Amino acid sequence: MDERKFSSDDIVNVACELLVALHKKRPRVHCITNAAAQVMTANLLLAAGALPSLTYSADEISDFTKSADALLINLGTLDAERRAAIPLAIEVARDQETPWILDPVFVNASAPRLFWANQLFASRPAIVRCNRDEFKALSGQTCELTAIERFAAFWGTTVAVTGPEDMIIGDGQCIHIRNGHPWMNQTTAMGCAGTALSAALCAVGASPFVAASAALLILGITGERAADRSSGPGSFVAAFIDTIASLTPDDIIASARISA
Amino acid sequence: MDERKFSSDDIVNVACELLVALHKKRPRVHCITNAAAQVMTANLLLAAGALPSLTYSADEISDFTKSADALLINLGTLDAERRAAIPLAIEVARDQETPWILDPVFVNASAPRLFWANQLFASRPAIVRCNRDEFKALSGQTCELTAIERFAAFWGTTVAVTGPEDMIIGDGQCIHIRNGHPWMNQTTAMGCAGTALSAALCAVGASPFVAASAALLILGITGERAADRSSGPGSFVAAFIDTIASLTPDDIIASARISA
Amino acid sequence: MDERKFSSDDIVNVACELLVALHKKRPRVHCITNAAAQVMTANLLLAAGALPSLTYSADEISDFTKSADALLINLGTLDAERRAAIPLAIEVARDQETPWILDPVFVNASAPRLFWANQLFASRPAIVRCNRDEFKALSGQTCELTAIERFAAFWGTTVAVTGPEDMIIGDGQCIHIRNGHPWMNQTTAMGCAGTALSAALCAVGASPFVAASAALLILGITGERAADRSSGPGSFVAAFIDTIASLTPDDIIASARISA
Repeated sequence: MDERKFSSDDIVNVACELLVALHKKRPRVHCITNAAAQVMTANLLLAAGALPSLTYSADEISDFTKSADALLINLGTLDAERRAAIPLAIEVARDQETPWILDPVFVNASAPRLFWANQLFASRPAIVRCNRDEFKALSGQTCELTAIERFAAFWGTTVAVTGPEDMIIGDGQCIHIRNGHPWMNQTTAMGCAGTALSAALCAVGASPFVAASAALLILGITGERAADRSSGPGSFVAAFIDTIASLTPDDIIASARISA
Repeated sequence: MDERKFSSDDIVNVACELLVALHKKRPRVHCITNAAAQVMTANLLLAAGALPSLTYSADEISDFTKSADALLINLGTLDAERRAAIPLAIEVARDQETPWILDPVFVNASAPRLFWANQLFASRPAIVRCNRDEFKALSGQTCELTAIERFAAFWGTTVAVTGPEDMIIGDGQCIHIRNGHPWMNQTTAMGCAGTALSAALCAVGASPFVAASAALLILGITGERAADRSSGPGSFVAAFIDTIASLTPDDIIASARISA
Repeated sequence: MDERKFSSDDIVNVACELLVALHKKRPRVHCITNAAAQVMTANLLLAAGALPSLTYSADEISDFTKSADALLINLGTLDAERRAAIPLAIEVARDQETPWILDPVFVNASAPRLFWANQLFASRPAIVRCNRDEFKALSGQTCELTAIERFAAFWGTTVAVTGPEDMIIGDGQCIHIRNGHPWMNQTTAMGCAGTALSAALCAVGASPFVAASAALLILGITGERAADRSSGPGSFVAAFIDTIASLTPDDIIASARISA
């Protein structure tokens, strides 16, 4: 539990420091992620300064997780191979106190997936990143501030609910971010890639609450700037990667729309 | 069986209406598709106004199919997980009268895949979208108009054979489309993504014959316009998505090269 | 064993001829490759004039390999399905004297993968393409010229070690290539796609040593020219495909930085 309370200015300043730290430390994030998110996740991490690895084979997942600095578990395209690998990866992460992050994609669309996701909470993800419908399915409640606070406190995790306004809740605090662009929802895997950035920021030492807040701030600003250089949701994908690769602390300070 | 006969002008007008309907109704298309087509298929559907889901796990496929508005079955990268999931998905689709569409990728290159594909016809796909070599393998005949008509009538399906000129045959009718651009064949998954658009148009109420004709018309026009904004087959992919996201009924009317 | 010794000018000239031959003969390269590399590999092969196929199912891999002109085995995302298919594909390739190429991705990160990779050498890959860390893991030695020469000679293979300077070693010869751009390492699957191009050049009749040298020369030059047209590592991907699709022999001659 991080005792310090963060103002919105604190988050902006820490986001700037973390972006620089990523390029300097180049942490490796192991990502068990869905089939439609693998390329975007890998390219986003590379552009932001981190190194991705993507293997999801049960035989090899322990070795890959042991040498990783953070672990991302994304439940999209949850096939038998991934279902076998995920618990092994989480076990290694917990043994080594490597932070692991959960992205419970589409738990609202499949009862077996919801059951599976709920079991993972006992292994204490550092961050859960989801949209409103996924939160409702996970918690069995409406997606309101107090419900999210209770859920985060009960499981000792940070919950980041993304949408037109992102809410990041953990450590008894709440941050709201209003950066972003509608094309981020019109492009597959943009949310998944964002979760990977949260994992990368944990890997360079940020607390889960700060990592999730800083990651979603960086991504929202990247999305706005990328949209200015794009002709539609297709060219937006490449512009998003170009933008994050050259994003500066000054860009973050100039564009942040964040409140505590 | 749709009793009405469609003129080429009818198809153009209906394509315009369906494009608007997609953005309004936002149907979800569940896609069991190949590993190289997942990202392109998801992004094309999103840009055209539909919502993709891509899970191919046997445990979850029933839940995902139940809540979907159309189902796409693409036989590329046909691994054990997909082979287990496909019959389950089709069974749910048939029970619920959800239209399902078949893309028998590379059946001409593998005897086990051809055998597998042939068995699926008993479950009555609404549309089969294939190239000339795939049709020859499926039908055991040459790819000529009368052979395609016989095949379509025998299986009670619409057959769309794509190439420099697309032929759509079903309900005792035939439409020819001459829109398109050679880069559509120089880019992986463009045909697969096109099949997904046919599924999306079925999902907003078009008959299979009309959905396949309108989808291939929209895609061909998108390809021509995207090529005008591209420097080669690489930038063409992003331009294709940008173009379909902003395509208007006027664009379709102005560019259609179609005959009945 | 190719008896002829190649000068750097020879490699440049042969690379020009092979690029033309690819577009003329359009060989099919079957690629068992990792989940993050499939789209890029397919699009690069298509843009360079070859045809990709990507199936990795054990049931079908023999049929797909039988009709292919070269075989690529990439060990990224080495799941159970791929582990079952790879030996079957290699067996067909050997029976038919189809060249097969190995890309031992991340063997340095996983003991089971290293064990698996080492067993494949007995089946005599025509080319092994790896980075320095992967070579160290494979050979148990430092990545120096004499160690690579010994390894190549012992296994009767061509070894291509890529990095800021590429080294291609085989047939008692060595070629150094200094073309390329840092964004090639900031984009997932660029190395994997390069290995696929080596396979395509083997498929049009080049010896493994010449194919690997010409492929890495073509890719390095493509990377430099693509970077000139890009705004960052995101737009670089599309520009890379655009560039290789329009690359001419004159471009290769003008830009080659190669020494024997």
